[in-house]
Amino acid sequence: MDVAAFLTSAGINIGLCVMLFSLYSVLRKQPSNRIVYFGRRIASVHVRRRDLFSLERFVPSPSWLVKAWETKEDEILASGGMDAVVFQRLLVFSMRAFSIACVICIFLVLPVNYYGKCLPRVDDPHRLLSTESLEAFTISNVDKGSKWLWTHCLALYIISFSTCVLLYFEYKSITKMRLAHITRSLPSPSHFTVLVRSIPYCPGESYSDSVLKFFTNYYGSSYLSHHMVYQKGMFQRLLGDAEKICNMLKTVPLDRPGLGSCCVCPGSTTSFKILAAETESVKGSITYSDLELNTRDNECSAAFVFFKTRYSAVLCTQMLQSSNPMLWVTEMAPEPHDVLWSNLSIPYKQLWLRKIATLLAATVFMFLFLIPVTCVQGLMQLDKLSRIFPFLKGWLAKDFIGHVVTGYLPSVVLVLFLYTVPPTMMLFSSMEGPVSRSLRKRSACLKILYFTILNVFFVNVFTGSLIAQLNMLSSVKDIPAALAKAISSQILNVYVTKYESGGQLWPIVHNTTIFSLLLSQIIALGIFGLKESPVASSFTIPLVCFTLLFNEYCRKRFYPIFQKTAAQVLIEMDRRDQQRGRMEDMCQQFHMAYCQSPMSSRGYCESGHRRRKEEEKNKDPEAAKPEKGPQLQERTLSELVLCNGDEPGLR
Amino acid sequence: MDVAAFLTSAGINIGLCVMLFSLYSVLRKQPSNRIVYFGRRIASVHVRRRDLFSLERFVPSPSWLVKAWETKEDEILASGGMDAVVFQRLLVFSMRAFSIACVICIFLVLPVNYYGKCLPRVDDPHRLLSTESLEAFTISNVDKGSKWLWTHCLALYIISFSTCVLLYFEYKSITKMRLAHITRSLPSPSHFTVLVRSIPYCPGESYSDSVLKFFTNYYGSSYLSHHMVYQKGMFQRLLGDAEKICNMLKTVPLDRPGLGSCCVCPGSTTSFKILAAETESVKGSITYSDLELNTRDNECSAAFVFFKTRYSAVLCTQMLQSSNPMLWVTEMAPEPHDVLWSNLSIPYKQLWLRKIATLLAATVFMFLFLIPVTCVQGLMQLDKLSRIFPFLKGWLAKDFIGHVVTGYLPSVVLVLFLYTVPPTMMLFSSMEGPVSRSLRKRSACLKILYFTILNVFFVNVFTGSLIAQLNMLSSVKDIPAALAKAISSQILNVYVTKYESGGQLWPIVHNTTIFSLLLSQIIALGIFGLKESPVASSFTIPLVCFTLLFNEYCRKRFYPIFQKTAAQVLIEMDRRDQQRGRMEDMCQQFHMAYCQSPMSSRGYCESGHRRRKEEEKNKDPEAAKPEKGPQLQERTLSELVLCNGDEPGLR
Repeated sequence: MDVAAFLTSAGINIGLCVMLFSLYSVLRKQPSNRIVYFGRRIASVHVRRRDLFSLERFVPSPSWLVKAWETKEDEILASGGMDAVVFQRLLVFSMRAFSIACVICIFLVLPVNYYGKCLPRVDDPHRLLSTESLEAFTISNVDKGSKWLWTHCLALYIISFSTCVLLYFEYKSITKMRLAHITRSLPSPSHFTVLVRSIPYCPGESYSDSVLKFFTNYYGSSYLSHHMVYQKGMFQRLLGDAEKICNMLKTVPLDRPGLGSCCVCPGSTTSFKILAAETESVKGSITYSDLELNTRDNECSAAFVFFKTRYSAVLCTQMLQSSNPMLWVTEMAPEPHDVLWSNLSIPYKQLWLRKIATLLAATVFMFLFLIPVTCVQGLMQLDKLSRIFPFLKGWLAKDFIGHVVTGYLPSVVLVLFLYTVPPTMMLFSSMEGPVSRSLRKRSACLKILYFTILNVFFVNVFTGSLIAQLNMLSSVKDIPAALAKAISSQILNVYVTKYESGGQLWPIVHNTTIFSLLLSQIIALGIFGLKESPVASSFTIPLVCFTLLFNEYCRKRFYPIFQKTAAQVLIEMDRRDQQRGRMEDMCQQFHMAYCQSPMSSRGYCESGHRRRKEEEKNKDPEAAKPEKGPQLQERTLSELVLCNGDEPGLR
Repeated sequence: MDVAAFLTSAGINIGLCVMLFSLYSVLRKQPSNRIVYFGRRIASVHVRRRDLFSLERFVPSPSWLVKAWETKEDEILASGGMDAVVFQRLLVFSMRAFSIACVICIFLVLPVNYYGKCLPRVDDPHRLLSTESLEAFTISNVDKGSKWLWTHCLALYIISFSTCVLLYFEYKSITKMRLAHITRSLPSPSHFTVLVRSIPYCPGESYSDSVLKFFTNYYGSSYLSHHMVYQKGMFQRLLGDAEKICNMLKTVPLDRPGLGSCCVCPGSTTSFKILAAETESVKGSITYSDLELNTRDNECSAAFVFFKTRYSAVLCTQMLQSSNPMLWVTEMAPEPHDVLWSNLSIPYKQLWLRKIATLLAATVFMFLFLIPVTCVQGLMQLDKLSRIFPFLKGWLAKDFIGHVVTGYLPSVVLVLFLYTVPPTMMLFSSMEGPVSRSLRKRSACLKILYFTILNVFFVNVFTGSLIAQLNMLSSVKDIPAALAKAISSQILNVYVTKYESGGQLWPIVHNTTIFSLLLSQIIALGIFGLKESPVASSFTIPLVCFTLLFNEYCRKRFYPIFQKTAAQVLIEMDRRDQQRGRMEDMCQQFHMAYCQSPMSSRGYCESGHRRRKEEEKNKDPEAAKPEKGPQLQERTLSELVLCNGDEPGLR
């Protein structure tokens, strides 16, 4: 590739960017597109509609860019959550690190390379720079054993140190932000809830009984109640049954005296019907004991267990529960709306097999992906193209077209093929059987990240020209930036935050950056060796050691905070809530939050809670006082079956 | 190497073994050696001495071998602990796996190799087998694309499957044994004690106050008391002071009335002196407040914290304590006699640096080790030897000497050099700053294991002839056996068990065996490729996958039990102890057990306990009852300074 082809490629990219930016700035001004570009704001605040026609609407303007730039971190935190802030930090960090690398490379490395005089060059002062090969700007142009190689070493030092300093301060401030995020967060059911899987089967005992027995026995002081997960099939049947009963009840005259409760039939959309609690036909068709037997058969070996404090919930997930590590597996429950109910019924013992299978599949995909890409990229050579498509011959002979084909098309082909990666990885992650949507997406994103690193970077570097890629030592630091390039301002206006990880993205960014740094240092080490510069080589080794030590320090100092929450923090939060009297309200909400279906939302899940309460009463006569809140009272069968279908669990 | 040289080497080894075995059987019969070979038995039981002279004493006999073979597992478990049983299991497992591999290789692989007809062979039926090169027995003698390569593949399958089956049953039974070992173990102070390091420094507050505050605040219900670790220097001073006082008191007449307490001066050996609690000279020289200030200044940022139950102690180690992961670092305390007190004063922040430094040092040592070995091994070639030492020329020309030099000496050189490895690794491990002797040894053993695998196996294979090493596909399975070769029936009679890991050795054995299996499979894959046998190659891939899956299953099913103890198990044990009323006694023993010095054993360490009790009294007036046991009463200064020097902590 010569300089002209490189510049053509860069020019096309910049042109496309400017075009897309202008298009965006025009489109977002159109009132009809408001719902697309301001979806989030419309959903949260009432925006005044102003559909007046004006010329301004069709003139591209950079005002939105300025606005996006001026947005403060607190605003993003308030509207997009902490993950959005971390994402924005990632962008800023990448820009900073890349700017430093750019300045160093342009003013220090590039002149040294260009005047390295290793490649044969025509001594013609009038020769155009544009016909120069790009290699003249790379380290391959520097003489073997040249004294100027120390500039490359110095550049490496400056880039590594500045990146490490930037990384340190980012990690520190994001850790602080995460701690603040955790301590300031309002109590959420997921803080108090543990997902228990692989509940052992005891003959003559339902899974629910086992859970009750186990947690009353070993976590008696902190266990509150639990909520079983049911097989999907059962709900379809129950919903069908409920609908039948609803239809049956439609025949009952509405103005009949003695009718009280209100009910929404889950199958129907808006039909409010008044239901007689005593209707004989309902009692006749399904009895409570029938229903209980039915639900028992359909219980999965998974349950949500609710604890009285955050601390005890976290404790429960930190311990190995049983002497068989494949039983009573505990983890913190995902947010209620984030649960993938269908995956909860997958037997726990299958999961590791699924994980290995998808890992294998993803690896195979990574290698298979190379075949079409290399084939199509191979076609992008001028002589091959003109041989395959002879009619293009004259056209391809033109200079500009040639530059486009050699400089731009191969990357377009790669990008087009890369579009197939995210859906494929998402498919693989779905097959892994994650318990929540966020975990599924996280797993897919990690797969894409590793795919990008291995495939795009390594394969491109090793199949292409290794040295050509190294004209900027910092090129690998683009990886996080490449991941982030699709952002828009992709946070404040458009998307509603679905789940919040509290900045767990950052350790991945950190590790990727450290990996990139180490890789560039090791490649530099190799090149210094090839260029027979033992001084530069030996000066690079301490740099590698320093980077490893820095990473180890960060891993010790900051990483644990992204893995676990400190006992101190949890206990303080629990105490604060207890002082404010929040805990009581929270406990009432748990059952509502983790409801797989309307059926279990107020009915069967409470029967577990009730049974536990009854057991406590039997043990401790003093506790036999009437319970607070109407939800905990005994319910009739009709209430049990036909409760409100508009539960959060159904969303 | 030809067959004769190989057989000479084997013959010498077998001869040496027989000689050493005979020597051992004679030496152990000598009454004077009884203390060497039956040290353990003498220490535990009273053995009748029978020094009669008889001829039998000087005749080698294999009876001890039979006895060792007949020793049952229960006997080993009772006398040597679980680690000894696991070690013996490792030997039995290695023998079994190796026997299977041997039979398969001798009867299936060896004939196929020998009749492979790839190497040029003189068609002389009278040609001696002994002059045949060893290569004739290896896979290199098999034709490329030979149909007989399936036998190698079959052998690999049989060896892999049988090893995996053996591994599975061993892992299963050792896991069961470990669980039984844990549940049956008597309460020990280490079960209830947590070592806290990196206690943060608060101005105007001693470390002891910080610990008291932190654990009363966050672990109030389960925290019992604590015990600070002091800097070494202080104890030397205190011991000196105590000795001075002791000398001073020697002048006090022994029959003076009003003397009560009994004291052993720690510096002296058996001098029992009666000490006046009111001696004015003592009161004058050190006052209580002086001493407290002194101990405050000398406190390390480490403490042993005692909990009421095993469960709460384990819980405390599972959680991240503070939002700064480098502070309040908790781990289960080692057994009291196992503690390396001097290492407890190393700042926690230094530890990771020390670990990295020793890792680097060990790696460098591994490569430097190669230089002398390769040099000396290089000398062991006949022509070089006769050039350097011309006077040996005639001698070396002899056939037998030639066989010894080429077949035996190189391995002797390697073994001699290997003797330098354990002390070096032990030195590295000491520099790491482990908190207990067992951890130090464990770390050193692991380093030696990796050294052996990498250095002896890889380097020998790649610098020597790769193929020659592969005449037995299972050769790599010797690694665990090689580690165990120094054993004798030295468990039952000789060694006193110093510390017990509860079989934590087994996961290492398992991983090493799996690694060896995978390595042999991958090497086989490569060789099948070289021999152009796509069928054998493609049949080996599922075997690799199966081995990986098997390992993953074992890692999920058994490994966690060797890492953590289940909540269920811990709680049941605590309950059992509470029912039997053992807990009260235990709590009294904690302070005695973790005593760095006589000073702290009954004095200052209890002052922490006392302070905590006082604080409890102030909070809860009902608890203000007199404490049980004389140790918890207020003590005079003389008792504080001059208490019994014969504490377990001093051993």
